[in-house]
Amino acid sequence: MNSAPMARMAIHTITTKPWSLRECIDSYRKKNVPGITVWRQALAPQGPQESAKMLRDSGLKVVALVRGGFFTGKDAATRQAAIDDNLRALDEAAAIGAPLVVLVCGATPGLPLADARKQIVEAIGKLVPHAQSRNVRLSVEPLHPMFAADRSAVLTMKQAREICGNLTAELGGAVCGRRLVGIAVDVYHVWWDEALESEIAAAGRLGLLHAFHVCDWRVQTRDLLNDRGLMGEGCIDIRQIRGWMERAGFGGWIEVEIFSNERWAGDQQVWLEQIVEAYGKHV
Amino acid sequence: MNSAPMARMAIHTITTKPWSLRECIDSYRKKNVPGITVWRQALAPQGPQESAKMLRDSGLKVVALVRGGFFTGKDAATRQAAIDDNLRALDEAAAIGAPLVVLVCGATPGLPLADARKQIVEAIGKLVPHAQSRNVRLSVEPLHPMFAADRSAVLTMKQAREICGNLTAELGGAVCGRRLVGIAVDVYHVWWDEALESEIAAAGRLGLLHAFHVCDWRVQTRDLLNDRGLMGEGCIDIRQIRGWMERAGFGGWIEVEIFSNERWAGDQQVWLEQIVEAYGKHV
Repeated sequence: MNSAPMARMAIHTITTKPWSLRECIDSYRKKNVPGITVWRQALAPQGPQESAKMLRDSGLKVVALVRGGFFTGKDAATRQAAIDDNLRALDEAAAIGAPLVVLVCGATPGLPLADARKQIVEAIGKLVPHAQSRNVRLSVEPLHPMFAADRSAVLTMKQAREICGNLTAELGGAVCGRRLVGIAVDVYHVWWDEALESEIAAAGRLGLLHAFHVCDWRVQTRDLLNDRGLMGEGCIDIRQIRGWMERAGFGGWIEVEIFSNERWAGDQQVWLEQIVEAYGKHV
Repeated sequence: MNSAPMARMAIHTITTKPWSLRECIDSYRKKNVPGITVWRQALAPQGPQESAKMLRDSGLKVVALVRGGFFTGKDAATRQAAIDDNLRALDEAAAIGAPLVVLVCGATPGLPLADARKQIVEAIGKLVPHAQSRNVRLSVEPLHPMFAADRSAVLTMKQAREICGNLTAELGGAVCGRRLVGIAVDVYHVWWDEALESEIAAAGRLGLLHAFHVCDWRVQTRDLLNDRGLMGEGCIDIRQIRGWMERAGFGGWIEVEIFSNERWAGDQQVWLEQIVEAYGKHV
């Protein structure tokens, strides 16, 4: 299988976290990276309108806004605050021209995961009308089971697909038919799952494959959150998973999303060069 | 549901890692903990024969030997060395009167997980005759998916059950019928799995439930390996899982197995008191 085309490459601003949005834009452009996925903290300093102008002028394609979600909670007020925040995220996405918002759906210690998933379905259902009016898709990202305590009750592709299915049932089939609610597949979270190939195929048939994130799993992972590896540095067969995505009909952006305390502490220009090289070699 | 009976309580020597086997034995006895699961490194200083005498004289019940496994590898010599080591583990278990050896089955970076699982089935199959002759059971422990890189390709109860099933098929049904190869269920590794209740029930029907390990998942986990929580300190509903085990017919030992750099750095007598108290309150 060939290398992934540069024309489909995007980088998440969090990957070069020390940089402002301005620095991300200028540096990605210089390296001919055509896509950018914007984290909300990169928008915050100058606000969505000014950010939108910077992004429009840059010629970069805005791939997604990250992140919404965190829908779960033990009381209604907490859950409503999450809905409100996600409505704002949809507005921000629309403002910067992001076609989708990635959802890290949330989990609450002490709340059974099955109950959390019901809250997640309910919350996404409430966002649908606003997402439709803003023409922004909602992309459920299954997270690795090591984040089940407080980040995500959605831990597998199967669970993400079922959430999309529940919403389809509730909303009369319109949502998934129009792919308004779908799935963001991140190799870091799902590589271990024996059902991954078949679930990607199933999601593809249903039109649910919204996004594809790449990085690697370091064999000696030093931190649960911020020790992701550069592609090629770990044990994930990224190219195989990309093949499964493409056979399932996905031809969209390939987004590099790497949280790494080690990499953030170094020179970000050097890091960006390493990312572009690794993308060519290992994606 | 009532507290777990003290009569079923056991502790893994690794839980009080700074202690020698002698210190573990004396301290557990003083606290009226009736069972002990022995890690091989606790045997090593005085050897299995001397350890066996200490354990016999103590009146403590030896619940298991930990651990065998690490069966996978890219070449035959590596895999044969693992078999040889596991044969020795079976001898050690027989020497100290442990009725089972817990298997952490292994994974090898770059080796597809499905291939690793085939190697695991093959390796366990080779151990069966020796396990039969020693009258020691082999207990596959599914590990949390965060250990998929290099510790275990067996990541779910379903995969553990299928491995037992494959061995039953290969060996004409005798193995699982006699429960020679079964499953060690550790709440830390499987609590997140939506299929947990049904898989425990299935394993129970097949006579595969060999062992039950308890600890807790700290919401803010600081280390992938050695930051397990004391029961009650995290987000696992341990009592619910114990209920599922018991409804599935399991009435065996409840083993406290906690790896914790923080706890190992403190006073082990105080730690032991906390363990006994937490067992009564949260198991």
